[in-house]
Amino acid sequence: MQACGLIVEYNPFHNGHVYHLEEARKKSNADCMITVMSGSFLQRGEPAIIDKFHRTKAALKSGIDIVVELPYVFAVQSSDLFAKGSVQTLHELGVSSICFGSESGDITDFTSSHTTFKARETQYRETLQSNLDLGLSFPEASRIAYREIGLTTDRMDLSKPNNILGFSYVKAIVENNLPIEPLTIKRSKSNYHDETITSSIASATSIRKELFAFGIMTPEIASTIPENTEHQLKIYKEKTKVWHSWEAYFPFLHYRVMTMTTDELQQIQGVDEGLENRIKKTANQAASFQEWVEKIKTKRYTWTRLQRIFVHILTNTKKADMNFVQSLSRIPYVRILGLTENGKAYLNQVKKDMEVPIVTQLSRSMNEMLSIEEKASHAYYSILPPAIRKQLHRQELAPPIFV
Amino acid sequence: MQACGLIVEYNPFHNGHVYHLEEARKKSNADCMITVMSGSFLQRGEPAIIDKFHRTKAALKSGIDIVVELPYVFAVQSSDLFAKGSVQTLHELGVSSICFGSESGDITDFTSSHTTFKARETQYRETLQSNLDLGLSFPEASRIAYREIGLTTDRMDLSKPNNILGFSYVKAIVENNLPIEPLTIKRSKSNYHDETITSSIASATSIRKELFAFGIMTPEIASTIPENTEHQLKIYKEKTKVWHSWEAYFPFLHYRVMTMTTDELQQIQGVDEGLENRIKKTANQAASFQEWVEKIKTKRYTWTRLQRIFVHILTNTKKADMNFVQSLSRIPYVRILGLTENGKAYLNQVKKDMEVPIVTQLSRSMNEMLSIEEKASHAYYSILPPAIRKQLHRQELAPPIFV
Repeated sequence: MQACGLIVEYNPFHNGHVYHLEEARKKSNADCMITVMSGSFLQRGEPAIIDKFHRTKAALKSGIDIVVELPYVFAVQSSDLFAKGSVQTLHELGVSSICFGSESGDITDFTSSHTTFKARETQYRETLQSNLDLGLSFPEASRIAYREIGLTTDRMDLSKPNNILGFSYVKAIVENNLPIEPLTIKRSKSNYHDETITSSIASATSIRKELFAFGIMTPEIASTIPENTEHQLKIYKEKTKVWHSWEAYFPFLHYRVMTMTTDELQQIQGVDEGLENRIKKTANQAASFQEWVEKIKTKRYTWTRLQRIFVHILTNTKKADMNFVQSLSRIPYVRILGLTENGKAYLNQVKKDMEVPIVTQLSRSMNEMLSIEEKASHAYYSILPPAIRKQLHRQELAPPIFV
Repeated sequence: MQACGLIVEYNPFHNGHVYHLEEARKKSNADCMITVMSGSFLQRGEPAIIDKFHRTKAALKSGIDIVVELPYVFAVQSSDLFAKGSVQTLHELGVSSICFGSESGDITDFTSSHTTFKARETQYRETLQSNLDLGLSFPEASRIAYREIGLTTDRMDLSKPNNILGFSYVKAIVENNLPIEPLTIKRSKSNYHDETITSSIASATSIRKELFAFGIMTPEIASTIPENTEHQLKIYKEKTKVWHSWEAYFPFLHYRVMTMTTDELQQIQGVDEGLENRIKKTANQAASFQEWVEKIKTKRYTWTRLQRIFVHILTNTKKADMNFVQSLSRIPYVRILGLTENGKAYLNQVKKDMEVPIVTQLSRSMNEMLSIEEKASHAYYSILPPAIRKQLHRQELAPPIFV
């Protein structure tokens, strides 16, 4: 058997994801489709709309064979570390290819961009640093540096988040000499950040926006997602009464910040350059999470970067907890959230050659990465009533979902 | 002018307190009545039912002249430190007497008990320690030791919390050679911890119980409190929709514990002897605060002790923050919450002789005790909607209440 890996968040799993999955299956000729998926908190620093277990079920019932969790320390990160963790995880599982969506749909755009990048990396780094020194945000500084070394072309716009991610995946594969073929599929229609639903293939952003706006499943939303997703969203909402959004965490986040000293705040991952004072000073001026971020935002501290920092505050993730990630030469474990019969067959085939353990549940004997996972999971469920949060958290200690 | 000091929590201010106030006024012959009052969190480790500012207003309108806040580091403490902080604060304000309630109503019971205690202190300490070593709680061990040195008599039952507090006040006065006359008044009827209202003089415990049970002001409750208290309770509830109880803080407390490592929990004031593991282990088994404490409680860890520890967790108060308290030779400041015209006249008279500063609001230039106050205040208001908590917290930065 051969496997193809997809790097996803499925927030929620929608028709665009179905298209991506089926195209990837064709293109890769694989007989097992594996996704590495962010868990409770996502790359842009947001809570997932429903928990990872319900998202896993939706994916497994729509054609994915194995869902693996991308650990928190890679999931809530900028593109390079996000890509490193995702690609390494898929590599441990022995995938032959990784397939991602892009505007151009031509993998040579990415591989040749990477060749150019390596040839001009010093120039890139210098330009990046001088732009950072001017007070620009990392994404903005990086965008300018890419353009300056000739990497941004009409075919390959490195100011688009999806292209940056694709580029980071290719980088992670090539620079680590991994025996993985990078593949890409032309994205169908909807832009990554479209705010409204305009067809049955809609962006996750627009779908979440409608879900929050209506609070219930509408026919329009249902038209953009598979029935399995519709079902999981509905049962999650019935159980918990919520779809998770930052605003629901605002009281906890505010409470936490107001009972921390600035010294303690300064120990949190991402809090630098006096940001601790700015976060404290603005806390009581904001009546919502949205307002709070608006008040802190600067040229340098983008919305996404601040959201990631707020996730780290909420989960009490410190610089000292994260230090080890940069120097990790490989992923310490692979955590299976769920799998199908077909996924199980594949796993049985590769298991004996795997160099890191497969973990299926949080347990007492945890390494430092799993202890961060546990805090993140508790923080994620904290907005729910005691009986429900206890029930949902129990899944963390259970065997993987099997459908 | 001469002042008499009362040591209070006013949770809430009721008819028994009016009686105490008026009797103390007569007995002391003072022309200014000063109370030192616990702020957001109380001696038994509970949030106050309404905030300190509304409790201050009720007291000032019912005959108290000055309300001073007992700092958190003394308020949420066992009787000796609670008494030390209260007596020292009143001493800084130059009171001539301190008047407290007791069963016997005869101050010689307390002063002669203290003489006996001093004569047999070594024996008391030895018996106390050996009982602690047997795993008894501090109150229980202390009770036995008092009995053994002959301190508990029919007239002076040192197993009653109120007598222990009175004894601690006298101890703090005598052992520091303070020029303060201790006075006591026989408590009228209701026992400290009566659970039901049986007359117009009812215990604060029974009044709170009814307030929580009915959620509104009933004629029966109203019959036990002055009109001013009734008014303050009503407007507080109208503004905030709540009367503060531990259960309202349960989600925040649970969230906090679940995102702390056991090492971090071990740094919190009062968390010793592996209690951090017990707190963590039981957290997800409890559907309420009540249930949680029930599950942790042991012979050694009494309900009150655990509640105090939970207050410290909620407010993020660490051992390192509290260390300095034991060695404080005097209170670093006196914080006025409110005063009357008469109180102002008294204050003008004594101000010039005071050896510590008068503080009227939390400010940017805070010492370590005020920074703990600020965290406690934010934790206290955290259960309220943003606009309300902001509005109520603003009082911390305002001049004292003047009625």
